[in-house]
Amino acid sequence: MQTWDAITSRRNVRSFDGRPISAESLDHILEAGRRAPSSRNSQPADFVLVTERAQLEQLATAWVGAGHVARSAATIALIIDESAEGGRRVQFDLGQVTMSMMLAAADLGIGSCHAGIGDEEIARQALGLPANKSCAFLISLGYPADRPLTPIKNPDRRAFDDVVHRGRW
Amino acid sequence: MQTWDAITSRRNVRSFDGRPISAESLDHILEAGRRAPSSRNSQPADFVLVTERAQLEQLATAWVGAGHVARSAATIALIIDESAEGGRRVQFDLGQVTMSMMLAAADLGIGSCHAGIGDEEIARQALGLPANKSCAFLISLGYPADRPLTPIKNPDRRAFDDVVHRGRW
Repeated sequence: MQTWDAITSRRNVRSFDGRPISAESLDHILEAGRRAPSSRNSQPADFVLVTERAQLEQLATAWVGAGHVARSAATIALIIDESAEGGRRVQFDLGQVTMSMMLAAADLGIGSCHAGIGDEEIARQALGLPANKSCAFLISLGYPADRPLTPIKNPDRRAFDDVVHRGRW
Repeated sequence: MQTWDAITSRRNVRSFDGRPISAESLDHILEAGRRAPSSRNSQPADFVLVTERAQLEQLATAWVGAGHVARSAATIALIIDESAEGGRRVQFDLGQVTMSMMLAAADLGIGSCHAGIGDEEIARQALGLPANKSCAFLISLGYPADRPLTPIKNPDRRAFDDVVHRGRW
């Protein structure tokens, strides 16, 4: 897919059609995340790839808004040092990782949605994390149940001329 | 360009060849940022597009690591509410915006590099920001001075099998 089509086709997908994602495609998405830039190239995130249904269902209870994880074909958990949880730069870097993975997924026709974590202990147990690691975000993946990813003409966003200022504020 | 080529070609570019970027390409990059997702679709960022040399040189002094801004063809300043500066979710969303813009730029053969802000007052004055707004990041843009953007085979990153865990930690 052309880059622009991936950028304009990506949308939050929370309902998946049940088809599995090939190991090759999952590695492709993980590799996109691995390549994301980070502050001083610190590469603060590890990724845990989860595809087992029982484990996905457990992870989905880590936040009230993470229900889509239970029904995903796969979910990637973004893991950081426990001590970095509040770090602004780390959060920025996680945003870069997430966008890179979501666009790589869209490129393959795979929908995605990220979720935060409400109960860290649930995520820790589901993923077998050591005490010094913390799950910061979940990125659920799957083929959309409703309609394929196609370019969105009018996304639900503030108007271009409202967001964009030229020269000065 | 194919999405995968944009993802694998993107690298931090801090040295630009002096060519201007067309208005159409700049709007394309800004539009990619506008489309980025955000927590509860809050769309916390405004964008200020700067192309005037004197203003770019002033902005470049807002952080010791922002020198590349002075020589860029254009720089996009990401603006947020002053009160949101410490917010983790906002930082994550800014990371998503940044990655989306950088990949849209790479798709056009345009290099990019983001910079943080050390002296908020310098950025505020250069951009004419009101008191309740703050410049969070600068994204410099330009055609690379050294070599065009081409897919990088072995990026300077931790090994795939070190970053990626399967099933559990």
